[in-house]
Amino acid sequence: MHGDCNKSMWGGRFTGSPDEFMLQFGASIGVDIELLDVDIAGSIAWAEALGKAGILTAEETGRIVSGLKLVHDTLRAELADGSFVPDYSLEDVHMTVESRLTGIIGDLGSKLHTGRSRNDQVALDERLYLLGALDSIAVMITELEQVIVARAEEHIDTIVPAYTHLQQAQPVRLGHYLMAWFWMLARDKERFAGARKRADSMPLGSGAVAGCGFAVDRDFLAGKLGFSGMTSVSENSIDATADRDYLIETLAAASILMMHLSRICEDLIIWSSAEFGFAQLSERYSTGSSMMPQKKNPDSLELVRGKTGRVYGNLMAILTVMKGLPFSYGKDMQEDKEPLFDTVRTLSGCLRIMHGAIGEITFDAARMEAAFDSGVFATDIADYLTAKGLPFRKAHEVTGRLVRWAQEHGVTLSAVPPDVFREHSALFGDDVMELFDLGKSTDRRSLKGGTGRQALVDQIASARAVLRGEIKE
Amino acid sequence: MHGDCNKSMWGGRFTGSPDEFMLQFGASIGVDIELLDVDIAGSIAWAEALGKAGILTAEETGRIVSGLKLVHDTLRAELADGSFVPDYSLEDVHMTVESRLTGIIGDLGSKLHTGRSRNDQVALDERLYLLGALDSIAVMITELEQVIVARAEEHIDTIVPAYTHLQQAQPVRLGHYLMAWFWMLARDKERFAGARKRADSMPLGSGAVAGCGFAVDRDFLAGKLGFSGMTSVSENSIDATADRDYLIETLAAASILMMHLSRICEDLIIWSSAEFGFAQLSERYSTGSSMMPQKKNPDSLELVRGKTGRVYGNLMAILTVMKGLPFSYGKDMQEDKEPLFDTVRTLSGCLRIMHGAIGEITFDAARMEAAFDSGVFATDIADYLTAKGLPFRKAHEVTGRLVRWAQEHGVTLSAVPPDVFREHSALFGDDVMELFDLGKSTDRRSLKGGTGRQALVDQIASARAVLRGEIKE
Amino acid sequence: MHGDCNKSMWGGRFTGSPDEFMLQFGASIGVDIELLDVDIAGSIAWAEALGKAGILTAEETGRIVSGLKLVHDTLRAELADGSFVPDYSLEDVHMTVESRLTGIIGDLGSKLHTGRSRNDQVALDERLYLLGALDSIAVMITELEQVIVARAEEHIDTIVPAYTHLQQAQPVRLGHYLMAWFWMLARDKERFAGARKRADSMPLGSGAVAGCGFAVDRDFLAGKLGFSGMTSVSENSIDATADRDYLIETLAAASILMMHLSRICEDLIIWSSAEFGFAQLSERYSTGSSMMPQKKNPDSLELVRGKTGRVYGNLMAILTVMKGLPFSYGKDMQEDKEPLFDTVRTLSGCLRIMHGAIGEITFDAARMEAAFDSGVFATDIADYLTAKGLPFRKAHEVTGRLVRWAQEHGVTLSAVPPDVFREHSALFGDDVMELFDLGKSTDRRSLKGGTGRQALVDQIASARAVLRGEIKE
Amino acid sequence: MHGDCNKSMWGGRFTGSPDEFMLQFGASIGVDIELLDVDIAGSIAWAEALGKAGILTAEETGRIVSGLKLVHDTLRAELADGSFVPDYSLEDVHMTVESRLTGIIGDLGSKLHTGRSRNDQVALDERLYLLGALDSIAVMITELEQVIVARAEEHIDTIVPAYTHLQQAQPVRLGHYLMAWFWMLARDKERFAGARKRADSMPLGSGAVAGCGFAVDRDFLAGKLGFSGMTSVSENSIDATADRDYLIETLAAASILMMHLSRICEDLIIWSSAEFGFAQLSERYSTGSSMMPQKKNPDSLELVRGKTGRVYGNLMAILTVMKGLPFSYGKDMQEDKEPLFDTVRTLSGCLRIMHGAIGEITFDAARMEAAFDSGVFATDIADYLTAKGLPFRKAHEVTGRLVRWAQEHGVTLSAVPPDVFREHSALFGDDVMELFDLGKSTDRRSLKGGTGRQALVDQIASARAVLRGEIKE
Repeated sequence: MHGDCNKSMWGGRFTGSPDEFMLQFGASIGVDIELLDVDIAGSIAWAEALGKAGILTAEETGRIVSGLKLVHDTLRAELADGSFVPDYSLEDVHMTVESRLTGIIGDLGSKLHTGRSRNDQVALDERLYLLGALDSIAVMITELEQVIVARAEEHIDTIVPAYTHLQQAQPVRLGHYLMAWFWMLARDKERFAGARKRADSMPLGSGAVAGCGFAVDRDFLAGKLGFSGMTSVSENSIDATADRDYLIETLAAASILMMHLSRICEDLIIWSSAEFGFAQLSERYSTGSSMMPQKKNPDSLELVRGKTGRVYGNLMAILTVMKGLPFSYGKDMQEDKEPLFDTVRTLSGCLRIMHGAIGEITFDAARMEAAFDSGVFATDIADYLTAKGLPFRKAHEVTGRLVRWAQEHGVTLSAVPPDVFREHSALFGDDVMELFDLGKSTDRRSLKGGTGRQALVDQIASARAVLRGEIKE
Repeated sequence: MHGDCNKSMWGGRFTGSPDEFMLQFGASIGVDIELLDVDIAGSIAWAEALGKAGILTAEETGRIVSGLKLVHDTLRAELADGSFVPDYSLEDVHMTVESRLTGIIGDLGSKLHTGRSRNDQVALDERLYLLGALDSIAVMITELEQVIVARAEEHIDTIVPAYTHLQQAQPVRLGHYLMAWFWMLARDKERFAGARKRADSMPLGSGAVAGCGFAVDRDFLAGKLGFSGMTSVSENSIDATADRDYLIETLAAASILMMHLSRICEDLIIWSSAEFGFAQLSERYSTGSSMMPQKKNPDSLELVRGKTGRVYGNLMAILTVMKGLPFSYGKDMQEDKEPLFDTVRTLSGCLRIMHGAIGEITFDAARMEAAFDSGVFATDIADYLTAKGLPFRKAHEVTGRLVRWAQEHGVTLSAVPPDVFREHSALFGDDVMELFDLGKSTDRRSLKGGTGRQALVDQIASARAVLRGEIKE
Repeated sequence: MHGDCNKSMWGGRFTGSPDEFMLQFGASIGVDIELLDVDIAGSIAWAEALGKAGILTAEETGRIVSGLKLVHDTLRAELADGSFVPDYSLEDVHMTVESRLTGIIGDLGSKLHTGRSRNDQVALDERLYLLGALDSIAVMITELEQVIVARAEEHIDTIVPAYTHLQQAQPVRLGHYLMAWFWMLARDKERFAGARKRADSMPLGSGAVAGCGFAVDRDFLAGKLGFSGMTSVSENSIDATADRDYLIETLAAASILMMHLSRICEDLIIWSSAEFGFAQLSERYSTGSSMMPQKKNPDSLELVRGKTGRVYGNLMAILTVMKGLPFSYGKDMQEDKEPLFDTVRTLSGCLRIMHGAIGEITFDAARMEAAFDSGVFATDIADYLTAKGLPFRKAHEVTGRLVRWAQEHGVTLSAVPPDVFREHSALFGDDVMELFDLGKSTDRRSLKGGTGRQALVDQIASARAVLRGEIKE
Repeated sequence: MHGDCNKSMWGGRFTGSPDEFMLQFGASIGVDIELLDVDIAGSIAWAEALGKAGILTAEETGRIVSGLKLVHDTLRAELADGSFVPDYSLEDVHMTVESRLTGIIGDLGSKLHTGRSRNDQVALDERLYLLGALDSIAVMITELEQVIVARAEEHIDTIVPAYTHLQQAQPVRLGHYLMAWFWMLARDKERFAGARKRADSMPLGSGAVAGCGFAVDRDFLAGKLGFSGMTSVSENSIDATADRDYLIETLAAASILMMHLSRICEDLIIWSSAEFGFAQLSERYSTGSSMMPQKKNPDSLELVRGKTGRVYGNLMAILTVMKGLPFSYGKDMQEDKEPLFDTVRTLSGCLRIMHGAIGEITFDAARMEAAFDSGVFATDIADYLTAKGLPFRKAHEVTGRLVRWAQEHGVTLSAVPPDVFREHSALFGDDVMELFDLGKSTDRRSLKGGTGRQALVDQIASARAVLRGEIKE
């Protein structure tokens, strides 16, 4: 059976059959069936282009197109009810579709592949798949951005310690902290848009490597299939069949996005600890323990953080595959699909989880306020001295000594008596005590991008404008 | 339903149900069902240990063990006929098994998890799986080594150019070249053995993190489950539940092995080109083109070379997951299974393909000999002069000038007239022409590890002794 | 001494001195001195902004700016003559400059850091450095593109086998093959431009994390320092100090570029082998062997191919560093500089080497033509039958059988007698022999992106237009 | 000048000079001068072997050996006082040494390279360097292990929450927690020992690829240079010159070690936060902020955590370099040195920092105890019920409901009234309150590997025995 099947594809030159295991290990049908819809869309367009070029008659074109639609519906149904059994001798989705087509419309089906190679066909399929996936991802990032902006608006007046080195640094408005996530995601969206722009180029007509031997209208194909980039039709057949940049660039952008999510998760996991207590994940995004009855674990966040490894690994996998590969197509490149599909699935899942987890998390403003060590006002104190004319570096040193004094006397900075302040610098007036106010401290940082209330309100407005598309980031 | 199921596992403390999507995205049952056999083996041993400790009666132990065997057979049957439907609310293989067990033997089933956590349970399962996988891999490497030694023996007297920088360097016996692969694989086998040694440590009894609260006999468990390493029982419960070294070390050894295979493939792919023509892959390990009727492509070799990326990616994935993870167990670590299972499958497949491809490849001794540029004798010429007392660096320079002379006169080095030799150095006698003999050239390198005939025969004998286990590499 | 120095920076709060080794191991001055120019430029702008905000008097501003220029010239001179000795107690370039400044202008120097943190300062420095580096890289890519187009124009009528799977696939014009490289590089340039766009955002004024406590004019700073992106001033102080996307995105683009170069090198190395003989690298980009006098190795190409590993490693390094890092700044992030600097240096070097090597390489048209196996015409034959109405898949099979016939009879495809052709298919006419012409074969692929002569001429014209900036790729 | 220098090495066959930039970019002397000592040691042994083989006279051997020693001392002095200027035309340390030697002893120096190639020479140098480095690393790991055991002994009776998912899991003895680190490091040491075993094989005599053309005594060389592995002399000249496994395996072991350190750092960083307050890093391993006077940051720990990226990157770099490389030596392999040297330096530094930081860190037992949420006793409660005959899964559920009751009533678990306990299960007796004792809870986990006091004392004794070498791990 296998031999026969292969014969119909490329067996003419071969005398024997391939090794059974080799056939199975080398087949991609178990993976690339995910390309079914785009493969059929591409084949329909190709049949029409062959018709337009007079290589197929109108009647032949019509029968092939109808046949392809039927193949599509049949295979979709089999996939839905689990009855699809991959035939490894057909290797991949392309030959599976052609084989089914020929089963339905007879020999005419074997005219479909005229002037086409699987090399340009798979490049088309991957690009079409990617364009769709990138559109979905963009929507999901936007939804996550929206929930972040909404949570930020709720927490304009909640004050939380900002950390550097996981040590309390300065008070910031929680909304300001949350908005940091927004701008990270905004860049991610831009990067995916860049990848999309470069993926938006139609490779059909490149043949195996040298270009198609028939005069098909490539612009017709591009229009039909919805390609609309600057270079809507690829410029060079060798490049078109050898290139996987679109895919790698997407995985690189995905790695950066996952890195962002991993940082958000890290903070929320730490905030969810009993010791911090700043945040309570909803039960819907938590799990328990099979052994310890008291546990409510932030599993969803850890899972997303862990998925970062998977996406980095996928990037490294495809970079390794393509390194030092001779031109143009090599079988090595078949290894491009799993990293892509897996990354798209992982991203979708993680964005969805983050949307729910962030949307439903409870922030505990009281715990945040209670957590403050008054050392966080040290910069305000140094700034106070600086404003009174002391060179900053001196002001820093004086304040540092006050911090040490407080520590050695077992009191917080705000409990240091005014005369001790004055002993450290004559510049201190009674107004120094007014510095110890969380809200006022943040409002002293009211320049653009700062954590002051008005600056934050403006920042949120700016983000909303970006979301409405008014400002193109 | 889901809520109910979870309630039985860890729902007591929870008021609501988990998010449906979160449940599905976070569940590992789709992946870790691969651990079914070892999970059940571990549970049987655990039930017996609980019995031995008096926590279960003999009768209870017996019913649980029988129940587990039945669960095993049922699930195996469902997996075989495709009727198994994962219940995501049961999260993983462990709870799936427990749930099935309780379905069969009732409440008694819920005694099984006494003193155990999924944290030590999964560590056990992974280690048991790994020990089995490493044993299989060792056998497959040995089989590949055997075919290499056999092919090397066939080609003791075939001479092939050895390359550095893909430029012809010196003549070597093809058998000598093939034996280089043997020693690479011998090191791989050692590395996997090292990983196995460190995986051979029994973690059960570590509980979730602090150790089991019941006095089970861990040495009994180790013996029962076949652990026999130096540290057959893990020394520290926190380490035992937090550790994934065994898995990472295996993936690192796998990456090096794949790197080796990728290099072998690279050479054979180049040798299979029309331009080199040194090797003909059998049709069973080749494929054709859907467009170009003449093609016979070395797909199997390219596929193995490409799979290197996948394995590197898996290594990078798990290294990333574990980086900076707080102690002890985090959900991030659930991401450890796919890289492991995928790597084991990839390695098995690649070793099997290489075994077949190398076993059936045809080497073309005539093409190899015809390919020689007599420049490969340049080192012999320089050595000749050195033996006659010329400092080597001078001898090298004189020979280099001869090479240039030949090139400028459009002749091969062996066609340079004797008097031109003498013009370049008076040390040249008539015997210089005797240097231009492939076999003699190789035999001049007859020290241990060299390509001389006897050295090669000895080398093969030494490899055979290693294979027989007489010499422990 | 160290203690004193540190005291001036952050020692007020500390009672003791740091560990000597820790100081040295943790210091970045040995690496980040590369940021000297941009650090000083940033400090000059900052001083002016402080002046504009009335925090410094005009006279103070002037003295600081003059002092900074002097510090710059002094340090540059010390670096040039090798007399610069890093003082590890000053940690980094920022404190080294401030310390020098204070040494020159006294206490006034310690006013410079008012309202600024090293967290926003280093973000500024890295962005300024990167903008400059990206501009240089863009120029170098353009130069490489130009030499490629020039070589392609020389070889419009040279025909070379195109390979898939390193097996001869179809004849293509060498110029067409070379142009594939052009379009790869064009995408690289776009990717770097995207990274540049997102790097073009001014972070100063973000302070340590919460924003600057003084009302400096950030737009003034952006203008002064040449930032001109959409978001010329960063929107959020936490994001601005925590973000390293600009750097990672650059490394990802660099990895793809290196992958491209590695593929080009791979082909040229194979082409430079004695067996292929398609290309001769100039001696200026080759090296010899210390032992084998005949060797002329394509070292430059191998070196570039090898450097791919370094750049991938740099990308993985920084991705790992940033994974799961809590907000905002952590010392971990100090590890961002070496991967960046090393990548920029590597890219510059590799682009320069490739420019020279490709510019000077000699292509051997005769060897290319002689290398053709007439099997490469098989697609033309199948297309011929298809054009005569045979379904393509049948035509493919008939042609495959002809290839096998030729092989079994030990002749090339072009030497198969006409009647044997006709025995395989009655559709073959005498004109079948006309198919065996390299030039005509390529010209049959004259659609856009194909290897036909006119298509190639058009493609080159299109590339020239891209280079002139007429078409924005 | 350059041309002349190159002529002496491999210029005979060349007509022109290499490109200046290419020479510099391709030279490794700036990096591989680190191999100076081992390179000279190798050359001395080689000279003696040539003498023993009668290729050099005793007098020649003596003069070469003396000359090499002088070259060593001269270069060491130049390196120490900064006067060494690399001559790029000499490419690498090997030719730099030979050139210096010839400068001292004249033409005789050019006899040294007889029968040797830089291909086997660099393999020797790297192995010798690695053996030394691995010995140092082993010592540093041991020192770190010792400080860990010492700290663990101090804290046998300090109780700390053990975490899973960064949520309090169960009480453990701090000493038990610290001992987890010990066993991780013990495995690291084993892995490095495995790498060392495989590096301990002498490659000299392999020549460029085919073996040396002179009958040198390789066993003499191995003995002289201290190789003592099973395969003290490499078995195959092609493998010996193509292999870099030793180096990659070391980098893989280093990656796992760094992963371990990153996890230790993560915990200590979290513990050092104001919110946890479990640990105080000594000032000697902390730094301050240039802007915020109150900061005392755990920089040393963050730096080590960040260095993980660098080591992972190095591993990925060399894996990428070697992937798909044709046999035997390629210039790509020159890229192997920086990852190796950088990793060795990084490991040494990180181990030293960790030794100091862990040795001097202060643990705050009172804060640890105060942090406990009595939910950590939930497992004890479930175990209590289980011991009274309730199936574990039921006991888990009952306890979970108690946890929820406590939460809903705003009390800790230990404050739930006895009758509420009994309402949840009639099995609860008055003795349930005795469960709420940290020490007793840990002692209930007294099986091997558990956190019970005696188990911990035994564990420490076992570790001390490992350190004394009595138990070979």
